[in-house]
Amino acid sequence: MIETDLDLLIYGSLLLTMSKEETVIENPVLGIRDGKIVFVMKDEAFPEDAYRAKKILNRRNTLIMPGLVNTHTHLAMTCFRGMADDLPLMTWLNEHIFPAEAQHVNPEMVYAGSLLAMAEMILSGTTTFSDGYFFVDSVTRAAKEAGMRAVISQGFIDFPTPDTPDTSRQMDAVRRLLSEQKFASPLIQPALFCHSPYTCSPETLVRIKEAAREADILYILHLSETREEVSLIQDRYGKRPALHLRDLDVLDSKTLVVHCAWLDEEEQDILAKWNVRVSHAPQSNMKLAAGIAPIPAMQARGITIGLGTDGSASNNDLDLFLEMDTAAKIHKVAALDPTVMNARQVVRMATLDGARALGMEDRVGSIEVGKAADLIILDLNQPHLTPMYNPYSHLVYAVSGADVLTSIINGKVVMEDRKLCHLDLEAIMKEVNKIAKRIRNSRLK
Amino acid sequence: MIETDLDLLIYGSLLLTMSKEETVIENPVLGIRDGKIVFVMKDEAFPEDAYRAKKILNRRNTLIMPGLVNTHTHLAMTCFRGMADDLPLMTWLNEHIFPAEAQHVNPEMVYAGSLLAMAEMILSGTTTFSDGYFFVDSVTRAAKEAGMRAVISQGFIDFPTPDTPDTSRQMDAVRRLLSEQKFASPLIQPALFCHSPYTCSPETLVRIKEAAREADILYILHLSETREEVSLIQDRYGKRPALHLRDLDVLDSKTLVVHCAWLDEEEQDILAKWNVRVSHAPQSNMKLAAGIAPIPAMQARGITIGLGTDGSASNNDLDLFLEMDTAAKIHKVAALDPTVMNARQVVRMATLDGARALGMEDRVGSIEVGKAADLIILDLNQPHLTPMYNPYSHLVYAVSGADVLTSIINGKVVMEDRKLCHLDLEAIMKEVNKIAKRIRNSRLK
Repeated sequence: MIETDLDLLIYGSLLLTMSKEETVIENPVLGIRDGKIVFVMKDEAFPEDAYRAKKILNRRNTLIMPGLVNTHTHLAMTCFRGMADDLPLMTWLNEHIFPAEAQHVNPEMVYAGSLLAMAEMILSGTTTFSDGYFFVDSVTRAAKEAGMRAVISQGFIDFPTPDTPDTSRQMDAVRRLLSEQKFASPLIQPALFCHSPYTCSPETLVRIKEAAREADILYILHLSETREEVSLIQDRYGKRPALHLRDLDVLDSKTLVVHCAWLDEEEQDILAKWNVRVSHAPQSNMKLAAGIAPIPAMQARGITIGLGTDGSASNNDLDLFLEMDTAAKIHKVAALDPTVMNARQVVRMATLDGARALGMEDRVGSIEVGKAADLIILDLNQPHLTPMYNPYSHLVYAVSGADVLTSIINGKVVMEDRKLCHLDLEAIMKEVNKIAKRIRNSRLK
Repeated sequence: MIETDLDLLIYGSLLLTMSKEETVIENPVLGIRDGKIVFVMKDEAFPEDAYRAKKILNRRNTLIMPGLVNTHTHLAMTCFRGMADDLPLMTWLNEHIFPAEAQHVNPEMVYAGSLLAMAEMILSGTTTFSDGYFFVDSVTRAAKEAGMRAVISQGFIDFPTPDTPDTSRQMDAVRRLLSEQKFASPLIQPALFCHSPYTCSPETLVRIKEAAREADILYILHLSETREEVSLIQDRYGKRPALHLRDLDVLDSKTLVVHCAWLDEEEQDILAKWNVRVSHAPQSNMKLAAGIAPIPAMQARGITIGLGTDGSASNNDLDLFLEMDTAAKIHKVAALDPTVMNARQVVRMATLDGARALGMEDRVGSIEVGKAADLIILDLNQPHLTPMYNPYSHLVYAVSGADVLTSIINGKVVMEDRKLCHLDLEAIMKEVNKIAKRIRNSRLK
């Protein structure tokens, strides 16, 4: 007797729910309908006759887990990947990144670079991202084509940018974003992104936060990435950056601060008190020699922390599994204590805590009935994943993005057996290579 | 007119020689005969009619480079991969690793675990390794089957071990190694490995170094991995570890010291003066919370430094490309200076400097006429490697082992298009899974 039709039925050998209880299911079977998880149970308890599925993925020797959440990216910077590395931060920014952005960032570049980044993210297990860059409508168009879930934020900074040459027109950009994005896609939500307290005036910081509050959307900013910017804020305002933000009343649970490498204890207490969310991008912080964020101390205060890759110019890939590996290791060596960060905590940072950081925990970040079907299927039949004593350990210390076989977002298979279902990868790479040729030529001049 | 027969002819789109001059060749063609590189040149200069090749690999959109050299492994520890993590070092060793070794390390386990490790290394671009573990004849048998180039060392420690239960019989183990290994394979060279100055008495350290000098082979030891062992040596001998070793006269260019996380400036000067070689294993040092080795300071002194993954129980993979990424980043953030380690230096550490560390630079580590044909071919047609401005940057910051298409050791193709040519991967994984089942059951008791 067939009770119910399903869009998708999936069998695997192990499933990590990453729910609050962190239930692990051996020989799981999972049903999806209308983009949502309808059931998840042990194969042996499954009444096979009760369901008819449009599509069945029978993937034995695989691990099923929630899709990863990348809480901080600048996607279109794939076009600058490896263009300049190993340089002092200010040389890198002022002589390479900013000039290249001024000359080459336009709607077409943002569209092509973002699409390439999305292909890379889907291929390495990320299903949700939070992007901050220019020309948000190009990012939105790419995300809709890729079928990805996203927070897409309009950036603000107090100097002319490629998409807002006149800084006095910032509120126009807010209005444009909200009117454009409102109906963009159920998978996409808009956000407002002030670059940082040292590049945005108190007036800009407050005005944009007020707009974010009014629209009930996320407010994002880079915070204390380097020592230099902490000094700058102290010189300018007579207090450390988190105190400056608190005194401007821009901190709450819909504020996401990125990096936080140089927060002192008082600042950490402030973030905890105001329930501010944090995005941690350890590989970028290491590569730019920014610093090591006090993540274990912030977690001890109950602060929600997600993981991010940052842009491809400072990483230089978007593989969140490798970010997990680094996150687990860097805090151990920084504290000279291997117990300050365990594998399970790190997997949570890349899934449920990432979703919490973006205010999406009601929909994604764990595999639970009623939640959106955002999940990935990993190949366990690999020499570097043999043997397996502990799946969390493997996910953090041994898996890389290339082990992801299949990615599903909102119930839709976006990659199956390493093939992208909706994106023409060759065409995307060709387009970015064309843009890179122009960038290369302009740098040779 | 055919002048010469070749065993193998390879076309690619870019070739990094990693020779002293670090020549880069666009559209390269490379000829191999009798395990050696016969020529390497630009495609357009190649007299195609002059050669007939038994096999041609025409791989456009690929990068050809020397095979990677992993200067420090404990291969058979793949059997313990992920068995215990995130624990204090002494708990990890005394309650997990040592008991598991005492119970489960035997010739069959070492053979199976090493073979699995070799499969993983070949699949991720390593062509030469330096292993230190027990039952060297099992490792040697596996290396011959895998066709890998190796330094295989007999370990010594002043307490009973699985293969030398009676520590007074250490010199028997030396004699056994040298008689067995002498004719093992032209690709394999034996070495002697004293575990460390804190687990080996001065007598053992000196006796084994004398045997190594007599046989003209490499002498390896762990040095100053943790702060605790430095204190221990200071308490016991009244001086820091490198001074202790110098005073025992065991330091020279055929001594390879591993880790070196806690060397002070005087000790670094000593290593430089005696031309001692160093193996750097940053991921293991991070995961075990051991410390961050002063690699830039040692490189400034002209010390030769290769990269190593360490064993799978403290990493937990053998992907040397990921080790390169970590090496480049950890020293930047430790110094808060992104210029202390650049991508090109790191690629050199994983190739030519690794070969130098093992005393093999006359044969491997770079692509040059007359050297052994140990090389790998990487797929550049990947989203995470698009676009490409600088190949060194990509190798360090964006490539992972899964991007290696083809591996060649001593002129022999050991992996082609991601398929292992001489190893039955499924059978190897099955065997290790059987061993892991026994380990798991014994731990449940």
